[in-house]
Formats: sequence, structure tokens, C-alpha cells
Amino acid sequence: MQKVAVLGAGSWGTALSIVLADNGYDVRLWTHRRQQAEEINSNSTNEKYLQVKLPKQIQAYYELEKAVADVSAILIVVPTKAIREVCSELSNKLHHHPTIIHATKGIEPESLKRVSQLISEEMDAYNYDDIVVLSGPSHAEEVGERQPTTVTVSSVNEQNAAFAQDLFINESFRVYTSTDMVGIELGGALKNIIALGAGISDGLGYGDNAKAALITRGLAEITRLGASLGASPLSFLGLPGVGDLIVTCTSTHSRNWRAGNLLGKGYKLGDVLEQMGMAVEGVRTTKAASQFAHQQQIEMPITNGLHKVLFEDMNPRDVVDQLMNRNKREEMDDLSAFIRTDCSD
Amino acid sequence: MQKVAVLGAGSWGTALSIVLADNGYDVRLWTHRRQQAEEINSNSTNEKYLQVKLPKQIQAYYELEKAVADVSAILIVVPTKAIREVCSELSNKLHHHPTIIHATKGIEPESLKRVSQLISEEMDAYNYDDIVVLSGPSHAEEVGERQPTTVTVSSVNEQNAAFAQDLFINESFRVYTSTDMVGIELGGALKNIIALGAGISDGLGYGDNAKAALITRGLAEITRLGASLGASPLSFLGLPGVGDLIVTCTSTHSRNWRAGNLLGKGYKLGDVLEQMGMAVEGVRTTKAASQFAHQQQIEMPITNGLHKVLFEDMNPRDVVDQLMNRNKREEMDDLSAFIRTDCSD
Repeated sequence: MQKVAVLGAGSWGTALSIVLADNGYDVRLWTHRRQQAEEINSNSTNEKYLQVKLPKQIQAYYELEKAVADVSAILIVVPTKAIREVCSELSNKLHHHPTIIHATKGIEPESLKRVSQLISEEMDAYNYDDIVVLSGPSHAEEVGERQPTTVTVSSVNEQNAAFAQDLFINESFRVYTSTDMVGIELGGALKNIIALGAGISDGLGYGDNAKAALITRGLAEITRLGASLGASPLSFLGLPGVGDLIVTCTSTHSRNWRAGNLLGKGYKLGDVLEQMGMAVEGVRTTKAASQFAHQQQIEMPITNGLHKVLFEDMNPRDVVDQLMNRNKREEMDDLSAFIRTDCSD
Repeated sequence: MQKVAVLGAGSWGTALSIVLADNGYDVRLWTHRRQQAEEINSNSTNEKYLQVKLPKQIQAYYELEKAVADVSAILIVVPTKAIREVCSELSNKLHHHPTIIHATKGIEPESLKRVSQLISEEMDAYNYDDIVVLSGPSHAEEVGERQPTTVTVSSVNEQNAAFAQDLFINESFRVYTSTDMVGIELGGALKNIIALGAGISDGLGYGDNAKAALITRGLAEITRLGASLGASPLSFLGLPGVGDLIVTCTSTHSRNWRAGNLLGKGYKLGDVLEQMGMAVEGVRTTKAASQFAHQQQIEMPITNGLHKVLFEDMNPRDVVDQLMNRNKREEMDDLSAFIRTDCSD
């Protein structure tokens, strides 16, 4: 039986472990918390993160070296801020060369580096080109229940992407491939900005029309930003773009939506973060994106408006009023600079 | 005071009349039902269609000739199937040349003609190029409550589009322009196919992951169809595309979603249509699109699957299983043939 290691036993890591176990692999699910590993091994549950019975082929480990020994692939699903530390340790403890796939959505603040870049920087034995990303519209709970779900895997190395597709695909988990690594990673990270905004709109009591406008115009501006960082605008039309955006912005399960909702209701950022009790990735992403957009003169009115709410104490309602009353304009004026439809060859 | 006629006093016509009245125009709201006109004029209500107090500048008419006399613009908001009849009558009773705008979402079955084409065919005094369309993500109820809303207007004649933009724009109703008349009209019509599918998915008890996949892959296929009919794929990324799709597929207010939901729960099409008691535009649109796709060899697996549910008595769950288990593939393989991002000039 082939062995696969999954690093990170949160809800998404656990759900993806179930997919792998269903596909017949022996899954080694790593967590640095010994107690959590023991719960998984003795009860076949991971109660805090996913309310579902785990297949027997999932065995938990709290020692990294044992978890990754002799596996043919490693799936990394730890939070963005832990990526460097985990990968540095992994690099020291890995004595063979399994394929590395990650399913972490985020970018490093300041540097705007993507997760695959962080992984390859910390692991000398791996080229950036060989890393695979898995992303798409997917609540972990639904994957755990074998509800129909679709995701996309991508790598510069197409053979590695095809390998990951074969690893995960089954009758309730459909896996597409893409060659646009940059777009797939950025779509997953940047959509959290818009989810915060959608939460604010709902928190203010605005309706579906306002939220649809925010999602649509937000999609246009994260596409602009993504394109300036080398992504194909097409990827933002796909599952890890539009698809993920829809799931995140229309579900009250989303952490970013929930944080935005509280902001819309008048809470201050510090209180919201305290009340959430966990990282809200979109807050850091908004700061990074807004700074970058300013430097590169990319027009991102929604992201900049969010920055004002989060870091400049501006009233969310005033931000919406400003967005509604900008100059009259053509809808596709700036996006069309990136997406060409009229070339002849 | 400038006068504007609105033909069609359903919920959307009434809501747009409110926008025009708020902008200072005298609005002549036409309905062929005398009783409805009398209710509007005596009570300032249109209870069956929109639960909101109407501004005094809205006056209802049940005689078409009086409604359109001396107006500077005519907004047509009757159902698709009534367009030819109303426009033919209008053509006979109009003795000057006001700008014509329409806000009707649909296409003619068999011919696949858009509403602007139907209008210009029935009205000799008007060229197709001069007709304006208004479309976007907009529940009428929210527009009636002055909730923030965005729409797009489009015409081959850019001056007419700008005129319509000025007519409608205000601080809670933001109006963009577009030059892609074909895309704006097709986006509004074709999205009803996907709304039916989203309703079926929800009716079957599938989750957010499945629905997001269906919306995203559905968007790709209506974009393919639209492009083959001359639309810019970009328009499907905008407010009348993605935006309208989100509002329609995630709201239980949508007539098409509701019909799909009943189908997913196991009701037969005839029973569903009877239970709805009004036209479900997406049913006719699915038939037309599926036939056209077959003739033109355009790949539309979701639309074809819907066709099987609607007209070939296939079980919706079997259709979903088929969609999940097609060949492995690259996500953007066919869409990228329409959207070029790599040309150098």
C-alpha cells in the first residue's frame, strides 16, 4: 500500500486525509499536538476540527520524522505563518524525495510571496517548479461527508500536477489540472479580501445586490493584482477564483466573512480579532495587497476602502458611499488591458 | 420636467420607475391592466409586485399611446414572450423618436434572438444599433428600498448608452457602461440555465461545494456559448455575468432557482411549472441552448445534463454523477480558446 503524509490536522488537512484514505492510501496525518494524535489513533475522531468518523487507514503522528519516512507524497496543510518553520524542520528530517503538494491559502505579508515559494526557499532539495498546489471551492465539512466537490491542482511541472490529480480524484472529489500555479495560489489567497468586504456589506444590513456588486468588482480588482504578479486572468474565472469566492462570500462558515460581518456591525478590529480567537488571513492580505497596489499604481478601490476600515478607523458605511459615487465609467475599462480578446493570430 | 415611459409594471419595471422618479423624471408606468393602473394612481402602491410606497411622480397608464406621448425615453420591461406584440403595437402608436432602452432578460426560443433584435424587428423606425439594454445583479425589492445596486447599460450606439447611464445613475444605483451589447443580453438570459441547475443541486441536498462548482463550470460553458454568438467573454466576468449569476443562484427569491429546487426534490417538470404558476424562463432557455450547442458542437455538459432532467425524464442524481465522473481534464482547456492572454502587441 502506498503511503502519503499529511502535515497539519486542522479541518482541511483532516478532510483531505479522508479523500486519500478513501482512495486506498495509508495516510500518516501529522500534528505537533500529541494529545490530538492520540485522539485520532484511539477514537478515529478529530472532534475539534471535523465531526466525522475517520477511516482506519488514517494514522496520526506527532513526530515529523516518523510521519514522513517512506511516503511517496507529502501534503502540507499548515497555516501560512507556520509554513517556513515546518518546512525548515521537514527539510532536515527528510531522507528521500517524495512529491510535495500544498493546500494552504495565503501569502506572506510584506514579501507577497506565495506558499510554494516559501516551501522551496526552506527546502534546498526542492525546486519551486516541482511543488504542487491544490485549491478550490471546498468546505472541509462537506468533503468529510463525501459531498460532490471540485478542486484544481497546479504545478509548473505538469507531471507532478498529473500525479496529484491521480492521488486525489474519486467519484465525489473531482480534480482538474491547471498550468497556472501563480493564478491558482493567488486566487485562493486574495479572495479572502473580498470575503471580508462581503461580510462588512452584510453586517451593514445591505442586500444581495450590494454583495453581488462587491464580489464582482472585487473579482475584477484581485484579477488585476494577480495579473500584475504574473497570474493568468483566466484562473480567476475558474474554480480557485470565482468558485472559491462564491463559497467564501456566501457562507457564514467563512472566518473572513464572519470577521467582516462584525466590522460591519460596528465592532473595532482589535475586538473582532479577539472575539474570533484565531487568525483572520484576509486582514493581513488586505494590508499587503493595498501596499502593493499603491506602489504599482494598480487601481483597487475595494481593497483600499477595506484598508481604511481596518487600519484607518473609517466608518464602513462612508466607504461604501465613496465606492458608489466614484466617476461614471465603463465596466471593463481596466480589466480589458489584461485580457485580450481581439488579437488576430 | 422630462418624461420617461416604462412599459411593464411588474416588480422590475416598478423598481426602475422608482429610480427614475428619484432622479426627478415624470414617470409614465404602463400596464395593460386597468385595475392595476388605478391602484397605482389612487393608492401609490403596486401591492402584488413590490411592497413599497411609490413616489408621486409615477403615474400609471393603461393606454399605450397616452403613456408614450411626448416622452424622451421608453424603458421596456415586459416578459420576453410579450416583446414582439408590445413592440408591434408601440410602433403603430409612436409618433416621435424617443430613445429605447430595455431591461428584459431572455432569448427567443428556436431563433436564439436577443430582446434588442426582437425590438428592432418589430419597430421599423429603430435600428438595432440604437437600442440600449440595462442588466445586472438586482433584486427589484432591494432597488425599491434604495439599497446599493449596480447595473450595466450597453448599446452599439455609445451615445445612447451614455444617455441611459445619465438617466438612471444616482447615489444608490450605480450604472456602468459597456460596448458589448451581445454579451450583456446573453449573460442575463443564459444565467437562468445555471440558476435552474443550482436549484436542483440544493434540492438534491448537495452542499456549497457542489453548487460553487456548478456555478463556476456553468459560467465557463455559457461563456463558450456566448462567445460563439459574438459576445465578448469579458462580459461574463462582469456585473451582468458573474454578478447576476451569484444573485440568482444564491437567492431563494429566484424563480428559476425555485423551479430547480423542486426538480431536485423529485417533482416532474409539468408539476413544477403548474406549482410555480408563472413562466420559468430558464426552461425554454435550456432547450434553446442545448439544441444550439449540439448543432455547433459546443461542449455544454451542464446544460445538456439539465436537458436530460427537464425533457428526457432522467434522474437528477444520475446527471450529477455523470458530471462528476467525466474524463480527467485541464480546467481551462476550452475557455482559453476564446480568451487570449498571450498576444504580444
